[in-house]
Amino acid sequence: MVYPTPVFVVGTYDAAGKPNVMTASWGGICCSQPPCVSVALRPATYSHDNILRRKAFTISIASEQQVKQVDYFGLVSGRTTDKFAATKLTPVKSKLVDAPFVKEFPLVLECKLVDVTELGMHTQFIGEVIDAKADEEIIGSGGAVDIRKLKPLIFTPDTQDYFGIGNFIAKVFSAGKDI
Amino acid sequence: MVYPTPVFVVGTYDAAGKPNVMTASWGGICCSQPPCVSVALRPATYSHDNILRRKAFTISIASEQQVKQVDYFGLVSGRTTDKFAATKLTPVKSKLVDAPFVKEFPLVLECKLVDVTELGMHTQFIGEVIDAKADEEIIGSGGAVDIRKLKPLIFTPDTQDYFGIGNFIAKVFSAGKDI
Repeated sequence: MVYPTPVFVVGTYDAAGKPNVMTASWGGICCSQPPCVSVALRPATYSHDNILRRKAFTISIASEQQVKQVDYFGLVSGRTTDKFAATKLTPVKSKLVDAPFVKEFPLVLECKLVDVTELGMHTQFIGEVIDAKADEEIIGSGGAVDIRKLKPLIFTPDTQDYFGIGNFIAKVFSAGKDI
Repeated sequence: MVYPTPVFVVGTYDAAGKPNVMTASWGGICCSQPPCVSVALRPATYSHDNILRRKAFTISIASEQQVKQVDYFGLVSGRTTDKFAATKLTPVKSKLVDAPFVKEFPLVLECKLVDVTELGMHTQFIGEVIDAKADEEIIGSGGAVDIRKLKPLIFTPDTQDYFGIGNFIAKVFSAGKDI
């Protein structure tokens, strides 16, 4: 329906404290101050109840070279699989919220649950971003995240593909100035 | 904070019935059934009150060659400017919801307001997608939207740039199968 959609890796703890991750593309930023992000999950997912129980989640954003692990996180359920063990990725316990993130992924948001809306097939969770961690390698010369270094994945809802980021097109609040 | 974020052109009518459009990047899909999308706007924007009054909005998605018009929609306010007249684009009255969309943009969602959440600097609106209209030129051989034909814009929150779509990386639910 909407293009592009992001590829979020949502990190949670289950009731026994086992770290889990799943891939989700329904979500985005929803507030600048306090910084908030949304992610919508089906109630049947293992992560759905984990978030409700712990009132927290993380969003890790992978680079395109990590597509295999990201895709795997969407293929199997945390009910039956230890996805970290299977992919040999490392769960890191957040010091700020009750959820784990993926050490090897270059951008991580640690979120405290602030709103839940049941919409039908999906429940939307809104998290306040308590901290964002970015690897040095994705920071550009100006001190901000450089999308060309991050190389995040894009999900295409209709055709179910992953795409990469393309070329710089224009500066925001500049391209339209001569209209 | 999150990559990629989309570039939505939000269409609304004001109290006098004048069509307005603004650019917004805080939002995304939030439910598959009923299909719902979210978009978050600052209360100070003209569109914010338009949505509350008419209980409807559209989201038009432009192609990268329309970046000038899209950027202009984010530069000026509908309070003082007729943005359609200024850009010579055409407002089309939706037959399904009380909002206009941009005729020249290749993908349009017509949304009925179903949920409002005040989060702080932004208010999140959730709309049920009553219909989606796609130009023939963006439909691929399989009958679905082809992101390579649509060429949607991406917004980078940190550096405030527009980027395009890149290369195909992998099929979803396939790349991770050999883990």
